[in-house]
Order: sequence, then C-alpha cells, then structure tokens
Amino acid sequence: MRNIEVCLTPELIHLYDLQGKIVIIVDIFRATSTMVTALANKVDSVTPVENLEVCRQMANEGYVIAGERNGKTAEGFALGNSPLSYLDNGFLDKKIAMTTTNGTLAIEKSKSGSSEILIGAFLNLHATASYLKSKKEDILILCAGWKGKFNLEDSLYAGALIDALSEDLAYDCDGALATRALYQANKNNISGFLAQASHAKRLQNHNIEADIDFCLTFDKYDLVGKLVDGKLVVWNWKTVGSRS
Amino acid sequence: MRNIEVCLTPELIHLYDLQGKIVIIVDIFRATSTMVTALANKVDSVTPVENLEVCRQMANEGYVIAGERNGKTAEGFALGNSPLSYLDNGFLDKKIAMTTTNGTLAIEKSKSGSSEILIGAFLNLHATASYLKSKKEDILILCAGWKGKFNLEDSLYAGALIDALSEDLAYDCDGALATRALYQANKNNISGFLAQASHAKRLQNHNIEADIDFCLTFDKYDLVGKLVDGKLVVWNWKTVGSRS
Repeated sequence: MRNIEVCLTPELIHLYDLQGKIVIIVDIFRATSTMVTALANKVDSVTPVENLEVCRQMANEGYVIAGERNGKTAEGFALGNSPLSYLDNGFLDKKIAMTTTNGTLAIEKSKSGSSEILIGAFLNLHATASYLKSKKEDILILCAGWKGKFNLEDSLYAGALIDALSEDLAYDCDGALATRALYQANKNNISGFLAQASHAKRLQNHNIEADIDFCLTFDKYDLVGKLVDGKLVVWNWKTVGSRS
Repeated sequence: MRNIEVCLTPELIHLYDLQGKIVIIVDIFRATSTMVTALANKVDSVTPVENLEVCRQMANEGYVIAGERNGKTAEGFALGNSPLSYLDNGFLDKKIAMTTTNGTLAIEKSKSGSSEILIGAFLNLHATASYLKSKKEDILILCAGWKGKFNLEDSLYAGALIDALSEDLAYDCDGALATRALYQANKNNISGFLAQASHAKRLQNHNIEADIDFCLTFDKYDLVGKLVDGKLVVWNWKTVGSRS
C-alpha cells in the first residue's frame, strides 16, 4: 500500500529515505503560502534563494527580489514576505527570486533522490491532495519548522493534507498519526488554536495579522506548485492528467 | 513565569538550552516505565548503560544486568526489558544495570548543564507532577523517540505531564502546545489511540501486549525517579520538601 510520512523539521530529514518519493514542503507562515499566492497571481515563476546576498544580485538578472529581515523588507528589495503583495496579479509574468530561511532550507534538503518537490499551503490544500491522489509514489511531507524546531502551523497542514487524502494511504509513521489527530481535534478552530503558536505570536508583534488570516484561508487557489529546474511553477494536475 | 518546553527527540536536543533546567526523560515503551517499576519494587538503584558489552561486564561487579536485542533477553543477561520482571519486589535491594538504546541516549544527552534529571512514565505521572510543582526551575521534557524520530507514546506522556501541571506554567514552545492538545483530544482512549503507533505495533509483534498495557497504567506508583551520581534512585518529593 502507498505510504505517507511526516518529517517534523528539516533537522530530522537525514532519518528519512527520500528515494522516489514526492516531497511536499510546507512553511505556512509565510514562505510556501506566499509562493502559492504568487503563482496563483500569475507570476512567471518563483526561485527560492538561500540568502539575501545571492538574492540581491539576481535583481541585475531581471528578477523581482523578495526578502525580509526582522519583519521588514530587506534593504534594496522590492518586496517583503507578505502574500498580500502579489494579489490582483501585481507581478504578472515577473520572475520572482525569494529568500526565506526555513522554507528554502527545507527545499534544499529535499532534492536528494526525491521524484518531485511540491510546495504546500492551506491556500491550495485540496488541489495538492487531488494531484497526489492521481499519482502512485510514496509521499513525504516536510515541515519547515522554526529554526530547526517543530512548529504548530506546519504540522497542522501536514495533518490536514493527510486527512484530505483519507483512506488511500497506509502509515506506520507516528508523525503522520500525530499530525492527523491534531488536525482532526482542532479543525473547527484552526485560527484560535494557532493563535497560541509561537510563530503566530512573533508575527503578531510585527502587526501582520492580515497575513496570518490570509495564510489560514483554505482552498482559495486551485493549483499545484512544483519545483522544476530550480524554479517553482504552476503545475496543474488536470493538465498533467490529460497529458499522460 | 516558569517555562516548560518539549523536545520531541534527542536528535533535536542541541537546539535547546538545558542550563539550570529540570529535564524529564521519557521512553514509555519501555525503558523509563521499566526503571520506574524497578524502583517501586525496591531495587537499590538502576544504572543506565549505553551498550550491551559494558553492561555485560558489570555483572562481574555485582550488578544484575538487563538488556534485550530484537525482543529477546540478550545472551548472558539475567533480565530483558520488561517491567513485569520486577514485580513483587523480585529484585529487592539489587543494583540493576540496564542497557536500552533510545532511553540511555536521551539520558546521556541531558547531562550537560541541567539542574537535575528525572525519568517519567505514566506509572508515576502525578508523583512527578507534584514534585515539579514543589520546585521553581524551568522544565524540559525530552522524549526518547524511536531511532531519532518522533514517537507517539512519549509525546502523549509529555502532553499528560503538562496537563497535570495545569496553570502553573507558561509555554511559548509549540512542542508543549501540540503534545498537550494531542493528549487532551485522546485522554479517554490512550490505549486505542496508541494501538496505531508504530512502536506499539512492533512490540505486538513480539507478543508483549501485557507489557504495553502495564506501561499505559496511570499512577500506579507514588515515587519520583531521579538520576544521582549516574544511578537512578527513588527521590521522594515529600522527603525533599521536609529537608529544605
């Protein structure tokens, strides 16, 4: 039977065998939520970049560069990390280079051996679940966490995705059992439950409650975000299905 | 306010500052459950030992040696890892040397800087909680996990202990929030919930359901297990209270 696992932080990824698996990276506040929003608002692509310096140089190659430090748009950067910046097709057809800490690290660590890498967010939860149902490979959900530690919002997403995949999967992974149980127990009050979370509190200190609310919106977008040649692009599972 | 954190596996312990904290090690199936049972049944002490070879040599120094590999008592060992072996004061006043994999590793990694190290189990949950309430130091619960990964039973214990400590603690640690929520959602069916857990399944394969049931008994013993000079001994918080 097809298997699903959850790795609770990139710090534990060496304990998992990625070979041939579909890896879904999740960093709800806010990297993967912002990436999905950018793709839904028709940017050309989003290139995840490890640090500010590399990202800054990409401005010279025609990229719109996005990055924050300490809750403010980094010096010389066009954009911070807010998903709201991309609404109304604000960066139509632009190539975005985006630097994040936890999210980019998680993507880097997932490249070795995996069959494909997707980005996940509540914003496109069921589109990703539908795509995964159309495939046969085993699945690993990698939570980006916070500075190496477990975090609540990414784990809840993992549980929500497993729940959406329902009966089609086997799991002997305790991370999958726990995150699904956590989601099921709190699914009617995700915002209230997450208001206690350490990262949400940090974000509230930066007056970005609007970002938090947005990142917790379910199924606003019907697209799959996939890493292709180092760039995140829209990968519509329906299109893929008709090709095969 | 006094703080409580949960480290979900020893593999993440380097991300935590142990300085001055009380660390509670938990390895429900079965190391810390067995240690608590041995102490309650009046062994002299339990010395946690890293590997079979070192443990085997301690037989020559008057220790009763306990250890398993692949679900069977290791060659030349008096005892396996079952808590049931110690019932009815079966090893009264004996010095036990016990080798476990996950549990001993967790203890080793907790020594640096912590103010004290306790072992926790459902068997003495409220005794440990009462002791912790009598103290002022910050608290770190370290789940032994399974080969570096998160596991369900140790995390549920963490949540149960936090729940028992109730309102006296602050936590901005998502591990504490998640494990408490997981416990609260499943506390009326701990056995059923854990029956799905990967480690419980492994143990069932070895026909030790009786061990599992025993390890999930709440508050059978009214004692605190504490590491003193490399040995686990009974540390009765009431006695300590009257000394101070």
